[in-house]
Amino acid sequence: MFFHQKELQFHSKPDRPDPLYAKKLQEILGGQFGEISVAMQYMFQGWNTRGNEKYKDLVMDTGTEEFGHIEMIATMIARLLDDAPVNQQEDAASDPVIGAIMGGMNPHHAIVSGLGATPENSAGVPWNAGYIVASGNLLADFRTNLNAESQGRLQVARLYEMTEDKGVRKMLSFLLARDTMHQNQWIAAIKELEEKDGVIAPATVPKEWEATEFSHTLFNFSAGEESKAGSWTEGRAPDGAGNFEYVSSPEAHAEKPVLKPAPKYMHNTLP
Amino acid sequence: MFFHQKELQFHSKPDRPDPLYAKKLQEILGGQFGEISVAMQYMFQGWNTRGNEKYKDLVMDTGTEEFGHIEMIATMIARLLDDAPVNQQEDAASDPVIGAIMGGMNPHHAIVSGLGATPENSAGVPWNAGYIVASGNLLADFRTNLNAESQGRLQVARLYEMTEDKGVRKMLSFLLARDTMHQNQWIAAIKELEEKDGVIAPATVPKEWEATEFSHTLFNFSAGEESKAGSWTEGRAPDGAGNFEYVSSPEAHAEKPVLKPAPKYMHNTLP
Amino acid sequence: MFFHQKELQFHSKPDRPDPLYAKKLQEILGGQFGEISVAMQYMFQGWNTRGNEKYKDLVMDTGTEEFGHIEMIATMIARLLDDAPVNQQEDAASDPVIGAIMGGMNPHHAIVSGLGATPENSAGVPWNAGYIVASGNLLADFRTNLNAESQGRLQVARLYEMTEDKGVRKMLSFLLARDTMHQNQWIAAIKELEEKDGVIAPATVPKEWEATEFSHTLFNFSAGEESKAGSWTEGRAPDGAGNFEYVSSPEAHAEKPVLKPAPKYMHNTLP
Amino acid sequence: MFFHQKELQFHSKPDRPDPLYAKKLQEILGGQFGEISVAMQYMFQGWNTRGNEKYKDLVMDTGTEEFGHIEMIATMIARLLDDAPVNQQEDAASDPVIGAIMGGMNPHHAIVSGLGATPENSAGVPWNAGYIVASGNLLADFRTNLNAESQGRLQVARLYEMTEDKGVRKMLSFLLARDTMHQNQWIAAIKELEEKDGVIAPATVPKEWEATEFSHTLFNFSAGEESKAGSWTEGRAPDGAGNFEYVSSPEAHAEKPVLKPAPKYMHNTLP
Amino acid sequence: MFFHQKELQFHSKPDRPDPLYAKKLQEILGGQFGEISVAMQYMFQGWNTRGNEKYKDLVMDTGTEEFGHIEMIATMIARLLDDAPVNQQEDAASDPVIGAIMGGMNPHHAIVSGLGATPENSAGVPWNAGYIVASGNLLADFRTNLNAESQGRLQVARLYEMTEDKGVRKMLSFLLARDTMHQNQWIAAIKELEEKDGVIAPATVPKEWEATEFSHTLFNFSAGEESKAGSWTEGRAPDGAGNFEYVSSPEAHAEKPVLKPAPKYMHNTLP
Amino acid sequence: MFFHQKELQFHSKPDRPDPLYAKKLQEILGGQFGEISVAMQYMFQGWNTRGNEKYKDLVMDTGTEEFGHIEMIATMIARLLDDAPVNQQEDAASDPVIGAIMGGMNPHHAIVSGLGATPENSAGVPWNAGYIVASGNLLADFRTNLNAESQGRLQVARLYEMTEDKGVRKMLSFLLARDTMHQNQWIAAIKELEEKDGVIAPATVPKEWEATEFSHTLFNFSAGEESKAGSWTEGRAPDGAGNFEYVSSPEAHAEKPVLKPAPKYMHNTLP
Ligand SMILES: [Ca+2]
Ligand SMILES: [Ca+2]
Ligand SMILES: [Ca+2]
Ligand SMILES: [Ca+2]
Ligand SMILES: [Ca+2]
Ligand SMILES: [Ca+2]
Repeated sequence: MFFHQKELQFHSKPDRPDPLYAKKLQEILGGQFGEISVAMQYMFQGWNTRGNEKYKDLVMDTGTEEFGHIEMIATMIARLLDDAPVNQQEDAASDPVIGAIMGGMNPHHAIVSGLGATPENSAGVPWNAGYIVASGNLLADFRTNLNAESQGRLQVARLYEMTEDKGVRKMLSFLLARDTMHQNQWIAAIKELEEKDGVIAPATVPKEWEATEFSHTLFNFSAGEESKAGSWTEGRAPDGAGNFEYVSSPEAHAEKPVLKPAPKYMHNTLP
Repeated sequence: MFFHQKELQFHSKPDRPDPLYAKKLQEILGGQFGEISVAMQYMFQGWNTRGNEKYKDLVMDTGTEEFGHIEMIATMIARLLDDAPVNQQEDAASDPVIGAIMGGMNPHHAIVSGLGATPENSAGVPWNAGYIVASGNLLADFRTNLNAESQGRLQVARLYEMTEDKGVRKMLSFLLARDTMHQNQWIAAIKELEEKDGVIAPATVPKEWEATEFSHTLFNFSAGEESKAGSWTEGRAPDGAGNFEYVSSPEAHAEKPVLKPAPKYMHNTLP
Repeated sequence: MFFHQKELQFHSKPDRPDPLYAKKLQEILGGQFGEISVAMQYMFQGWNTRGNEKYKDLVMDTGTEEFGHIEMIATMIARLLDDAPVNQQEDAASDPVIGAIMGGMNPHHAIVSGLGATPENSAGVPWNAGYIVASGNLLADFRTNLNAESQGRLQVARLYEMTEDKGVRKMLSFLLARDTMHQNQWIAAIKELEEKDGVIAPATVPKEWEATEFSHTLFNFSAGEESKAGSWTEGRAPDGAGNFEYVSSPEAHAEKPVLKPAPKYMHNTLP
Repeated sequence: MFFHQKELQFHSKPDRPDPLYAKKLQEILGGQFGEISVAMQYMFQGWNTRGNEKYKDLVMDTGTEEFGHIEMIATMIARLLDDAPVNQQEDAASDPVIGAIMGGMNPHHAIVSGLGATPENSAGVPWNAGYIVASGNLLADFRTNLNAESQGRLQVARLYEMTEDKGVRKMLSFLLARDTMHQNQWIAAIKELEEKDGVIAPATVPKEWEATEFSHTLFNFSAGEESKAGSWTEGRAPDGAGNFEYVSSPEAHAEKPVLKPAPKYMHNTLP
Repeated sequence: MFFHQKELQFHSKPDRPDPLYAKKLQEILGGQFGEISVAMQYMFQGWNTRGNEKYKDLVMDTGTEEFGHIEMIATMIARLLDDAPVNQQEDAASDPVIGAIMGGMNPHHAIVSGLGATPENSAGVPWNAGYIVASGNLLADFRTNLNAESQGRLQVARLYEMTEDKGVRKMLSFLLARDTMHQNQWIAAIKELEEKDGVIAPATVPKEWEATEFSHTLFNFSAGEESKAGSWTEGRAPDGAGNFEYVSSPEAHAEKPVLKPAPKYMHNTLP
Repeated sequence: MFFHQKELQFHSKPDRPDPLYAKKLQEILGGQFGEISVAMQYMFQGWNTRGNEKYKDLVMDTGTEEFGHIEMIATMIARLLDDAPVNQQEDAASDPVIGAIMGGMNPHHAIVSGLGATPENSAGVPWNAGYIVASGNLLADFRTNLNAESQGRLQVARLYEMTEDKGVRKMLSFLLARDTMHQNQWIAAIKELEEKDGVIAPATVPKEWEATEFSHTLFNFSAGEESKAGSWTEGRAPDGAGNFEYVSSPEAHAEKPVLKPAPKYMHNTLP
């Protein structure tokens, strides 16, 4: 059960309107790694957690905060859209700066939402749940989370570069910090789980299920051996179960497949 | 530039047809973490790599292999569909086992592809590029990759549980092993990058951009303090830049936002 | 800013597992009119409201409650999936009831989420933000909301018919009641707005913008005059601005359009 | 069965080309509430109507007209694209007005459709059937329709503001009028149905299915009691079955859920 | 402008209900090559045609007919859903045939549409406009059309195999015939255009734009020379502009690309 | 199994950066008929081919080459994005040319991919597998392929018009040539198949399944008889099985359908 408090978690007021930047900011609201993604992802992970109350609480703590971040960015976008020049056709014809703004802003911000944020990314594509992950395996999912916070913080850093507005940058400084914390916490939680069960997810696969002769080998499928110089071609592998190997010229381990002709009732082309 | 060899990388022949299992196997072909996802993800990461030829070769080596995995699973699905009972209506009426198969198989396998694999997940939803990630930041992307190989191996393990077919299990044993290797290699590569630049991605954000007073704090937004017992609430944080803190009752750091009324030409409801 | 309390708003415990019903229940979680839709819709409406704090609070009150409904249904689905027969292939071959379940359940519930709810509809299609509406015009949006609560309650009623499980029905009885309240409240709010501004949204369109000679006419474009018998073909129209009219044989008010040939540089087929 | 007449229902000729406006106009062609949506929605409602020939004819009359509106807007877009400056790179470099147009127009209008309309919204996202509704319950669906005509007319009004072109405005004046009529007719039809069966959809839910103690209560889940001042917190509710109530501090009616640990064969993280 | 007549173009009445078949039939209603696709595709081609009234009329004639086909199939699906066993849980537990039906039918047919057709394919995925094509080049588009009618007829043939119902087969016999006609007509129209302008689309590309030394060569990128035995490796090519050639071992015509390192402000990983 | 060679198949280096053109070029990378589409389409056709090794090799030869084309265009896009003015806000305010570029470029190229190509079309919509076709019937699929190469070449021609950059045009000249070859080869392969089995796909439908009285008739559903003047209204039809006919006033061949009222448990509106 959720409760809402109208005060924002952090400041969200630009120094001045900027409809072009409002369009860009949509990426961290409704994009692949926007706040909707992390909020929904952590919720579904929490609801799917069976036992493991400590971890469940952690994802719910974090996910609930993320809903507040959606709110913060939605508010910022609404304010960046104040006074967007949507009805100034005559001026646009003679003033190329206004023309560039009108051509470059997301038309949804004017036609669809009436100067409000939309649940879309910076290209105007609606958010969809194919972005998120909740598998029931905590090690796998915390790696998902660490990734999401890494990509998210990267996008915030790029957006920081794209504006000089002090109010916008203030909000972004908060988001950078929270993404730092979230990376820190997922790293700590992953370490806990790896120390208990090992680094390969899921930890529960019996050895005899696996063709272990292929578990530590890099196949050189892209010509050129630059990749041979990395830490992944010799020495003990992180799972402690074998040594890395490198195969310069990978070979097929199976024959060329020839499929049975389709039955006549399928109306495929018969041979 | 790519070259194709018709021999398969590994065996891909079931002991017997099984159209219901063919439907399930689609998940690791065309699902969020199926082989199409990793193949395309590694390709775009490779093509977007600027400099860093060692890492570029690594992702191209791995991604090129994954195209061979798509092929392997597509072949397996085609063989599991041999003799699918698609035109045996009369039998289905009297034989509930056939009825269950006809009701449960993916209709696309008969109507659309003529007993072939489709670029879809196990629910019949087409693959889309919103699943994949290629950001230009290698630490962020290698975390994406580690996640993808963890989720992928988890799904393979579950699929292994769902069949007794020895031929199918043989192919899955190979996929388990390759996912083990890929987890191992991304862990190794991540470690290289973290040792060089630190654990917080991206490493290039200047300290003064960040509201660092919020960089190490867990806010308890979900009532109950179970999460306090974890390694993420006290002690040195993984980034080495501060100590973890825990806030039991998070507070707002900003006022309640009140938006400017919409201009009349927007036709919003005026206050 | 949001807070989460782990106790559920209402009971969510089935009498017995039922993976087929779990699949169906996904519709009111992640379908077009599921709880994700109303929760997100009310949030974006709230965040986009400019002035009108009374209405803003109403949508935020309601939307925040809906997040709790997502949680309630996600919990129910997880419990309906307990003991789903995903690894009992041998039994399935001989027991057609188990076969029907395994053929009919959503494969994502086993392969992807590990016996948890997914953010998808009952066919396995991921939720997307193209379902929701937040226009900035309250009359238009409250009609959206009344519609959503009508469609949602209809689906709950149909799902009630499809189970005999007392625990499931108890939860549905709560959802039916809340959808009743939400229909009641949006009807009341719509009435307030219509009394103030009239029934045609948006109320702010100047008369001279509109070709009012077409504002009260039903054109009979589908042969047969059954529709003439309704309350929409004669008498005062609800907007009070004219009388309904009926045109048996609609006519074109413009000529046949002939487009200018494409310029040569477009490589269209030239005439 | 359908017939087509090449004359347009109404005028559709701009005074001058305007590729930027062509992009915006796509919203009411292929957006969530564009003409494709209403045309397809009314068709599916008609085809799904069982009995109720009067209402069936009404939706078919209206839906068939909407196909003519798609045509009208598609024609307008094609004409707005005449002479789009797609091959004038040299000029664009020196003339910022042309640059703004080339940067702001939808690239599909040049590359994909050869100066024709596309079945997409104003951001270039293809229309999809997840936008539409046809439930078999007429009260629910007519509320859908009233909503669609409200959102649609709102978007037309905003587009009217965004152009000075007399030809475009003439077409929009017709669309404003038809949306007025369609709002009028759905209001009239809703009133008929509500008078017969009551205002809560669907009308057929037996009282004993519903937890009626929750059917008239507003829960204050968003802090602040602004919403208490509305017509939805006291007095007789529109359904006539109870009085509105207001709960300042909503409480949980169920315990904290603890899920059963996942079975080992799921490879979830065990507690 | 369109008109609708309620009589169907052809019979559409099954001998008996069959909810499993109703699900399958959705493929030719709302699938990639279903009737919605061809109807919308021909409409957009017609509306985008500039000049060429003869061809425009042909696509409009055909597209308008296809709307009648949507109607016919939607009606058939509604009738196949009559008496679907959606509320017979008790029976399903003991009767595996009913269980198979309930597990296998599309849940949307009961929960969402109330026993009506939905604008979806046979897996329940909503139709979307990314399926269709209208490029402004008639030769290219008529090839699209010939393809659509070929794939569509193939699917109808497969569906014919999957039922013994005489009423359903009667309707399919009509669709087979119309797809035959439509293939015939597009072949005829393609021949007209090819005879005028040549077989390579678009015909308007100046010779000097093209690296013609690569215009007639098959590169053997998949090991094995089976493809050499075809009519595409020697002799005059269909365009009459050269002879086919075959290259056994394709070679790169460009160097290995090395991208410029990203600027620091992008926060990519620097080399 | 696949192998990768880092040298490109052809040159891919622009004379100068051009972020606006980079956005447009995405169409032939990740659009409906971009290189991802043809690569994936040919792969699935190859993997689904049952017998017919000659044709299988042909599609695999061609599809493998297309992966190299994706690479070539991705490289070109990355180079066109070099020095994109993403962090020059101050300049943009005063320099309208920079403003136009920043407003018009795809925000994903800066925020999401770090100056790399994305798997999206020119409007920023992610590629999805709903674009592609692999039916198991070679005649049908080769028509799909001919269509894809026709639409693709058309888009390349239009993109050629939109740039003066010699490096870009050089790459496009290669793509034009390869699309010429691919059209040539599919025409040749189609001719082979048609000569063997006839022109109507699939060839295996028994005559008695088809209502042949409707197999050669054009119905005039769009008023106006311009289409009568074509080669498709009289004379022998291409299938050699009948003569074309023309029906000026098409008539219904079935009655008006009246559906059975919905059962009460569906909660539809009863008549
Ligand atoms: Ca290599
Ligand atoms: Ca907590
Ligand atoms: Ca009528
Ligand atoms: Ca409140
Ligand atoms: Ca070959
Ligand atoms: Ca005609």
